[in-house]
Parts: sequence; structure tokens; C-alpha cells
Amino acid sequence: MKEVVAVVRINMMNQTKQALTDCGVDAFFAHEAHGRGKGFVNPQILEGAEQGYEEAAALLGEKGKLYPKRLLTAVVEDSMVECVVDTIINTNQTGKPGDGKIFILPLLDAVRVRTGETGEKAIV
Amino acid sequence: MKEVVAVVRINMMNQTKQALTDCGVDAFFAHEAHGRGKGFVNPQILEGAEQGYEEAAALLGEKGKLYPKRLLTAVVEDSMVECVVDTIINTNQTGKPGDGKIFILPLLDAVRVRTGETGEKAIV
Amino acid sequence: MKEVVAVVRINMMNQTKQALTDCGVDAFFAHEAHGRGKGFVNPQILEGAEQGYEEAAALLGEKGKLYPKRLLTAVVEDSMVECVVDTIINTNQTGKPGDGKIFILPLLDAVRVRTGETGEKAIV
Repeated sequence: MKEVVAVVRINMMNQTKQALTDCGVDAFFAHEAHGRGKGFVNPQILEGAEQGYEEAAALLGEKGKLYPKRLLTAVVEDSMVECVVDTIINTNQTGKPGDGKIFILPLLDAVRVRTGETGEKAIV
Repeated sequence: MKEVVAVVRINMMNQTKQALTDCGVDAFFAHEAHGRGKGFVNPQILEGAEQGYEEAAALLGEKGKLYPKRLLTAVVEDSMVECVVDTIINTNQTGKPGDGKIFILPLLDAVRVRTGETGEKAIV
Repeated sequence: MKEVVAVVRINMMNQTKQALTDCGVDAFFAHEAHGRGKGFVNPQILEGAEQGYEEAAALLGEKGKLYPKRLLTAVVEDSMVECVVDTIINTNQTGKPGDGKIFILPLLDAVRVRTGETGEKAIV
């Protein structure tokens, strides 16, 4: 089992949730977060800022400033990780800075409180 | 050391915190999250919805919709994991959908900022 | 790669973000959390409470009560972990209860959604 954590744009949450559900992931949770990526300035970012993308503008501004994002966490079987990652990329990739990141963490065990089931039985 | 993350009902937070404290876990943190479990429909869920359980009603509704929950994270010694899991189950198990999930993640190290202590010394 | 999670005082977030940026960590995210540490009472805590530190007062109060904190998560290369931990300690250590904790979790992989890059390329 793995914990897949995705940092995505706020306005991409609904599409991402729907895409993950279509992909067979039914159990996930989400919360608010503030984040930022690398602060380097390149022509693509400059262009993005000129086109009004807040993430691009942010990257040009104050170092260390964080911007509102959403964190989406799904706990899935190992065999589902690739599908989840591909789904998040396909749904969120615009090619502009601020598309987000995906982190994959190991999970030792899961428990369904209602039944006491553990392991993969708890998440499928 | 392990990180134990529990997704529980909002109205079970106080009881869960108290039960964990009684069990000897003194250090934990909590945050708001939105989540959902499997969207399958079974007689138990239908019955729950008819009895006014919001989680049950939710499971019958829009796929992908998330409901307010609380996330409770405790960092504990390996020997405490079983007690923590049992305590969370005992406190939160109603047998109805929405009772929550528990996830157990490996933890490489912990540091107490005040003293610089690391490892188990940082969490006990 | 490692995920470094720090629980810090709310009013230390800006200094901590700036210090991490200076240390070369450009990508992190933050969220609100409520937390508490050990509930033991010692002279230092009593003294802190008398001096008006809310965390100290809290430790003397209701068991299980949680206080507002900030969670700061940075995903970094293995070689950066020591610098990140030292930076968080240097920025947040007052010697008073409530200085916070740092947790280090293993990370299996990271993906930059914009480019599809994985591994360390996704985080540097």
C-alpha cells in the first residue's frame, strides 16, 4: 500500500476527484494548504505572469511567500499507484508553473474502523 | 517510531483525544480534512441514510463528493501502535459507514525543537 | 528523498519560511493544525505560564486540549535533511515549551506535474 499525496490548484480539485473516482479510487481525503515551488525565474514564468497566472506572478514576487493550494491524499494498493499518478498528471498538467507535485509515501498498514479490517481489505 | 493518522468523525474528536491521553499518548496534532470512503451502496448504507446519518446519505449521493472529517496524527513508539489503534477503534466504532480509517506510516526520526533531542527521546 | 514535517508556533512561520529559503529549500507547503506535546508539569512550564506563554498555560490546563500551530512540510534530497532540521531548530528554539517538533518520513518518489519528471529531478 502507498499514500499518494498531490498538491494541486484549488480550481482543479473537482476534476481531479472525479478523475480519480473514474480510475477506481474511491477513498481519499483533501485539505487546504499553502505552498510554493522553486523560485527561479525563467522566460516561461515571466510569460505566465504577463498572462495573469497568479502562480507565475508569485514566483516573481517575494521569496518564501506561499499560495493557496489543495492537498489530495489517496491510500491505494501498490498496483494502483501508476494509474493514480497518471490520472493526476493528465488532469492537472497545463505546462504552466503551479501545476503541482505528487509525493508517494510508503504505508505500513491501514485499518477500517467500522470493521477492524486491516491491510488491503481496509482500503478496497 | 510510527506516525498513526486517523480520519474520524468531527464529533468524535474530543472523545478520541481523551481516550488517547488516557492510553498514554500525550503528543498529537489534528487538522480539518474532507474525505470519503467507498461509494458502493449496500443495505446497511440505505438503512443508515433512512435513519438520518449524513455519511450514509452522502454515500448514496454524488460520486466524488467529500464530507468534513478530522485528521488526528500521533507519533508514537512502535510498542504503542497497537494500543493507539485499539483505542481509536474502541472510541469511534459505531458499525455505521463513516467510522473512519487509520493509517500507519513509518517514521525515520523525530526531533524536539526545544532541546534538540532526537529519536524516541523526542516523543516521550 | 525525505519528507520533513515541522510543527511550529504560528508566529514563527514567516521566519522559518525565510530561513528555509536561505538554506536552499525552495519548495514546501504549510497548513493549519492544532497540536499539543507532553502534558507533564515541571517548574519551567509553571514559570512559562506565569510569564504569559499560552503554550505553558495550556500545558497546565485541560488534558487533551489542542492549541493552534502551523505544519510546514518540505520534501528534500537526503543530503538536505540535516540543514533543514538545523535551520528549523535555530529559527524556532526558544527553550520554552511549545517550540515544536520535527518529523522525518521516508519518501518513495516525487513527480512534478508540469513536466512529468520524477525522483530528485522533481524536487530540485
